[in-house]
Amino acid sequence: MTYCVGLCVDEGIVMLSDTRTNAGLDNISSFSKMFVAEVPGERALVLMTAGNLAVTQTVWNLLQQGVWLDGQQRRLETVPDMFHAARLVGAAVRQVQQMDGPALLAQGFAFECSLLLGGQVAGGPPRLYLVYSAGNFIEATEDTPFLQIGEHKYGKPILDRVLNMGTSLSEGVALTLISMDSTIRSNLSVGLPLDLAVIRRDALAVGTRKRITEEDAYYRAIREGWAGALREAYLNLPKPDFPAV
Amino acid sequence: MTYCVGLCVDEGIVMLSDTRTNAGLDNISSFSKMFVAEVPGERALVLMTAGNLAVTQTVWNLLQQGVWLDGQQRRLETVPDMFHAARLVGAAVRQVQQMDGPALLAQGFAFECSLLLGGQVAGGPPRLYLVYSAGNFIEATEDTPFLQIGEHKYGKPILDRVLNMGTSLSEGVALTLISMDSTIRSNLSVGLPLDLAVIRRDALAVGTRKRITEEDAYYRAIREGWAGALREAYLNLPKPDFPAV
Repeated sequence: MTYCVGLCVDEGIVMLSDTRTNAGLDNISSFSKMFVAEVPGERALVLMTAGNLAVTQTVWNLLQQGVWLDGQQRRLETVPDMFHAARLVGAAVRQVQQMDGPALLAQGFAFECSLLLGGQVAGGPPRLYLVYSAGNFIEATEDTPFLQIGEHKYGKPILDRVLNMGTSLSEGVALTLISMDSTIRSNLSVGLPLDLAVIRRDALAVGTRKRITEEDAYYRAIREGWAGALREAYLNLPKPDFPAV
Repeated sequence: MTYCVGLCVDEGIVMLSDTRTNAGLDNISSFSKMFVAEVPGERALVLMTAGNLAVTQTVWNLLQQGVWLDGQQRRLETVPDMFHAARLVGAAVRQVQQMDGPALLAQGFAFECSLLLGGQVAGGPPRLYLVYSAGNFIEATEDTPFLQIGEHKYGKPILDRVLNMGTSLSEGVALTLISMDSTIRSNLSVGLPLDLAVIRRDALAVGTRKRITEEDAYYRAIREGWAGALREAYLNLPKPDFPAV
C-alpha cells in the first residue's frame, strides 16, 4: 500500500509520500515513490505514485525518455505548462496500459495506478493534479486544496478540518506529516521513511527535498506534539450529563 | 454505508451508531441500526448492524423469535452468558445466509453483514464482540478495547491514539462522538441522527439510550470544541526550519 498527499495553497506546493511497497503481506520493501523534474528558474515539478510498482516505474521511465503528445515527443522538462504536464503523465499511463495492460489482465491483475503531479512552470500558477489509471485527471482547487492517493482515509479528517488556501507552507508541512502519521499508525502497509518536497510559489525550484526517517527530529516533534495535543484536547472537552455516564 | 463503534473499558460499554442507509447513491434513508435486549437487574445487551439492511433486519427478527443453538431455541434474553449471546447472533446470521444467501448470489449480491454486540449478563464481565458474515466472531480485549463496523477508517486514528481500558464512560462517549464526527465529515454516506447506548459495569441495565440529532447541545459542543481544539493544536506545533518553507 501507499499514502501520498499533495497540497496546493497560496504560498505553493507541499508533496509528501511514504516509501513502503508490498507484494502480498509478507514481501515488504522500500521504494521511493517521489520523482522530480526541475529546470531551476524555469520550472519545478514533483510526481508521486501509487498502485502497481512495475506500472508506475515504467511511467516514470517513459516520461524521462519522452512521450508523444499532440504529435510531438515531450518530457516534463519541455511541456509548455502544468496542464500539458498532466496530459503528458496521462499519455504515459495510457502507453504503459497499451504495453502491459493485456498481459497483466491475462494473469488476473488489474491495471492500476494513480499519480499526484504538483508544481509550477514559469508563466503559470502552481497547480496540483491527480492522474488516474485511465490517464484522465482532476485538479485541486480552492474548495479542496489537497489531493491524496493510496490509503487516503485515515489521514483525511485533519485535512478536511483545517486546510485552506491561506495555510502557510510551514503549516502545510506539519499538516501533511500529521496526516501521514495518522495513516502510519492505523495501517501497517504505509511506512517510513518519507519523502518530502516543497515548492514555494514563483521560486521555480524545489526548495525542500528531504528524506524523513524515524530519527528525524522535526518529525518526532510533530508526532509527539500532536499525540499530546490530541490527548489534552479530548480531556478538556465538555463531559456529558447523560444518565449513568 | 454505516459507521458503528463500540468501546469496552473498565467502567463498561459505550455503543454508537449512525442511521443512514443507502440503496445506491440516490436512495438515502434513515433506519436505526441499534437494537437492545434487556432484562433489568439481570442483563443488558446492545446490538449494532452494518451491511445489507434486509439481512440485518432479518437477523434481529430471528433473534427476537428465537434461534436454535446447541439443541435449544434461545433468545438474547435467555442465553447464559455473553459468549453464548455472540454465538447466538452468529447462528442467526448463518440462518439468514441459508434462507437468503443463494437468492442474493443469484442476483449478483454478496451476502454481507457485520454486527457489534456489547453488554453484560449477570455473573460475567462486560464484553464486546464483532460478528462477521460467516457467523464467526472476535472479541475486544485490553490491547484493543474498541471494535468498529462499516466505514471505520476515518474515525480510527483518534481511537488508536487515546483509548485505553482506563478511559471513563464519560470520556468514552466524547471519544465515540469525535470518531463519528470525523467519519460524517469525510463520508456523506454516514449521517445523523445517531443512536447512543451506555451500559455501566454491573448496572445490568442500559443506563443511557439516546437519539442524537443535529440540534443536540452536547454533540454540538463536542463537535465545535473538537474542531477548535484541533485547529489550535496544529497552530501550536513546532515550525519546520527546512529550506524555502
